[in-house]
Amino acid sequence: MDRERPTFTEKFRQLKEIFSQAAHLRGIRRLLGWDQETYMPGNGQENRAEQNALLSEMIHERITSRRTGGLVEELFEAVSPKVPENDHFVCLREWKRTYNRQARLPSSLVKELARQSVIAHKAWAEARRSTDFSLFKPVFKRLVQLSRQKAMCLGFEHSPYDALLDEYEPGTTAREINGFFSDLVPPLQATVYKIAGHGTCPPPPISGRFPIEAQRVLVRLAATALGYNPASGRIDTVLHPFSTRIGPGDCRITTRWSKSDFTEAFFAVLHETGHAVYSQNLPKEHYGTPLGESVSMGIHESQSRFYENIVGRSRHFWKYFFPIVKGMFPGEIDHLGLDGFLKAINRVRPYFIRVEADEVTYNLHVYLRFVIERELIEGKLEPGDVPDRWNSLFMELFSLEVPDDGAGCLQDVHWSGASFGYFPTYTLGNIYAAMFLKALRQDFPGLESAMEAGDFSPVFHYLKENIHRHGQRYRPVELLGKVTGDKPSAAPLVEYIDKKYSELYC
Amino acid sequence: MDRERPTFTEKFRQLKEIFSQAAHLRGIRRLLGWDQETYMPGNGQENRAEQNALLSEMIHERITSRRTGGLVEELFEAVSPKVPENDHFVCLREWKRTYNRQARLPSSLVKELARQSVIAHKAWAEARRSTDFSLFKPVFKRLVQLSRQKAMCLGFEHSPYDALLDEYEPGTTAREINGFFSDLVPPLQATVYKIAGHGTCPPPPISGRFPIEAQRVLVRLAATALGYNPASGRIDTVLHPFSTRIGPGDCRITTRWSKSDFTEAFFAVLHETGHAVYSQNLPKEHYGTPLGESVSMGIHESQSRFYENIVGRSRHFWKYFFPIVKGMFPGEIDHLGLDGFLKAINRVRPYFIRVEADEVTYNLHVYLRFVIERELIEGKLEPGDVPDRWNSLFMELFSLEVPDDGAGCLQDVHWSGASFGYFPTYTLGNIYAAMFLKALRQDFPGLESAMEAGDFSPVFHYLKENIHRHGQRYRPVELLGKVTGDKPSAAPLVEYIDKKYSELYC
Repeated sequence: MDRERPTFTEKFRQLKEIFSQAAHLRGIRRLLGWDQETYMPGNGQENRAEQNALLSEMIHERITSRRTGGLVEELFEAVSPKVPENDHFVCLREWKRTYNRQARLPSSLVKELARQSVIAHKAWAEARRSTDFSLFKPVFKRLVQLSRQKAMCLGFEHSPYDALLDEYEPGTTAREINGFFSDLVPPLQATVYKIAGHGTCPPPPISGRFPIEAQRVLVRLAATALGYNPASGRIDTVLHPFSTRIGPGDCRITTRWSKSDFTEAFFAVLHETGHAVYSQNLPKEHYGTPLGESVSMGIHESQSRFYENIVGRSRHFWKYFFPIVKGMFPGEIDHLGLDGFLKAINRVRPYFIRVEADEVTYNLHVYLRFVIERELIEGKLEPGDVPDRWNSLFMELFSLEVPDDGAGCLQDVHWSGASFGYFPTYTLGNIYAAMFLKALRQDFPGLESAMEAGDFSPVFHYLKENIHRHGQRYRPVELLGKVTGDKPSAAPLVEYIDKKYSELYC
Repeated sequence: MDRERPTFTEKFRQLKEIFSQAAHLRGIRRLLGWDQETYMPGNGQENRAEQNALLSEMIHERITSRRTGGLVEELFEAVSPKVPENDHFVCLREWKRTYNRQARLPSSLVKELARQSVIAHKAWAEARRSTDFSLFKPVFKRLVQLSRQKAMCLGFEHSPYDALLDEYEPGTTAREINGFFSDLVPPLQATVYKIAGHGTCPPPPISGRFPIEAQRVLVRLAATALGYNPASGRIDTVLHPFSTRIGPGDCRITTRWSKSDFTEAFFAVLHETGHAVYSQNLPKEHYGTPLGESVSMGIHESQSRFYENIVGRSRHFWKYFFPIVKGMFPGEIDHLGLDGFLKAINRVRPYFIRVEADEVTYNLHVYLRFVIERELIEGKLEPGDVPDRWNSLFMELFSLEVPDDGAGCLQDVHWSGASFGYFPTYTLGNIYAAMFLKALRQDFPGLESAMEAGDFSPVFHYLKENIHRHGQRYRPVELLGKVTGDKPSAAPLVEYIDKKYSELYC
């Protein structure tokens, strides 16, 4: 009998227990976050900040203890073979990565960042409401300072921004991201100009009377059709839509509603459904280990953008859904016809708000944020100068003057949560999604006609089989290679946009 | 300079930090519990059980570590003077009590009880829905077994039930509770017979059309009038109403609604408002220490029963509220008149459901549960025999045959949460509430006329000043003595009921 085997097995079990507890604590922290955005009373803020800080500290302590470090090192050396097909190796590879990152961060910094984020969220919401950046500035400064400190602790080769980026998209660098934008921004701007130069004004947005109760029925119907299991989730109302995974069997969606334009909630829900279906399909039996976690935020966003745009804003999708929506809101969209409706939900125009942006201008919005946060983290831009920098960059990219900071640098929630490095994953998501579409089309030539008949199972089965069920077995780029046979490239996205908008604005 | 002082201060700070973390974890666990009852999707159950078990284990580990025990022993010896006016002493007295209780419980038992409770809750809900005790029996057996084990670990002088009771009402014994019931049950039964013998049928319950949206407005109005701060809480919908304190600034109420009888939600909310106002008034600056915690469940229930019954079912209260309710639901209660309405909300009749019981029969319901759970924990009753025992006791007390277990032993949530020893605190609450009323009347002779004018501040200022703000400074009986000048006694409750119902059924 091999005496090493049982030792490895037992030590692996111990390490798994530590990381499983950390995973449960993160699930609990996500419930706290969900509650904070949905139902928490106003005066609960301060207490929530303390709860959040405590959980973050406890997660950090568990992951970075000397015992964890020792086990990670020892078992990673011992595990064999070191291939993604070996479950133990995958876990140890990711635990090692996590340990190495987290152990570099002092506990006090982790706790302080968690606490400041909750406080900053409140300040941001107030600043945004009164479109007054000065209300946000002090705590924003503090968050930038803490985030730069974090990047220094984590270490980096070229830019401190890489250290933060690595949290959301492991292995990616600012230089690579910049490369994608170099390939994307000029053709996207060209498309915007072409459409503008086409002479036709953008079609008006959807406008009518869409009772919220009926909208609730509609979005639930759409989410379910796209593979979301409503018994393992719910849909709530928030200011800034998100989806969150409290744990297996509990993956929640949030949205906001507009009485005059049902597409606001509809596309928000499609987007979050993309995330939530990914979460629901992660293998339950591996919850608490890397094999039960999503691979990266870029891949996560590719799922949401795939659902929202590639599926949700396509002609095939609406061939099925347009009559349903007409029936639910009699007389409100009939006059548009399917063609008019498709133009309305795909209207391209330079505008101030990212979350309302079309597929073409969206990545320009992300680019702007990428430039600014990179400059902030690299110490090339003072936090107090963000409004000016924002507005001048916006003028460069969109030829528009930002009317106030509410429609400018205060519009997004991310910086109030110190999520520097998150924004680029949206564009990565768009890039990956276009690559997945190409691959899916090759595998299912009947994709379009299935969608037109209301059968979206080819989509969600494909994504489950090729992406969701793997958890973190493959690194992002590796997974992409397996599914598409290609390296990450902006070309399929440029091609997709070019084709789609040439047809729409022909 | 005294060299001992800083040592004590520093060690006290360390101990306070440990218990403060435990308090935050309990607050987080309460949020999980609230979510479970309000919004959690059905498939989230299993994950929630794991989260709950983990938090319970972590709380237990913190409180019972050797370090905690050492600090508690050392500082309790050192603290001086040992009087309730000394903040340090109060904390150490209660921490010692908590440590001594918790350190006797093996961590595995704590975790298993937490996990089984979540599972049992689901089984109970299903058993109740299908009125089939057999669905609940296996896990119920397990809970009784674990709870008996818990009692054995905790230790006791006379009955293992005392060990469990002590968790909810420190210092009380089954013998004392039994004494209260001996004083209460005969006169209450006599009152029931007297009212029944009076010859008049009980008035019909309220029945009409009461839109839920209007009810929401009404209950918020009433809760606020009674001192509840809505910015530090919220009101949600559940199957079994409760109130919970997530932390300072976040004390939530839950209720259920009936479209045909607004009083169901109304009195549930008044009851929970009593709890929630207590929670909101606990000194925020002491959160995390015993000075920021409620003194006992008996005192807690005295607040809720005070609000629900002594205030909420009184003529004075309705002199103010009756016209308001008439205005909100035109034509629905006008025909009753104030007198008819008061009779309807104070109708006395033997019936199956505790939470719908009137003030007179309520304590008989509690008595029945007390008898059964005491027998269970003392090993004199098999869990499988509970339905039979329940039904025969019910016949004895109410002269009614229980139609099914849904209207019998499955009606309450408590046992599914292993909360054996909780029920008697309802009757203690009623007893204490009547004592508080007596004291309050002596201090505020103008109480009734203030209430009739819609001014309830004498009530909530009195309770805040005399009870809430003290946290756990005084032990329950000590506090009662300070406020009322008396020892706990059922006499004021008997007197209150006798007077009220003689007048109503004169």
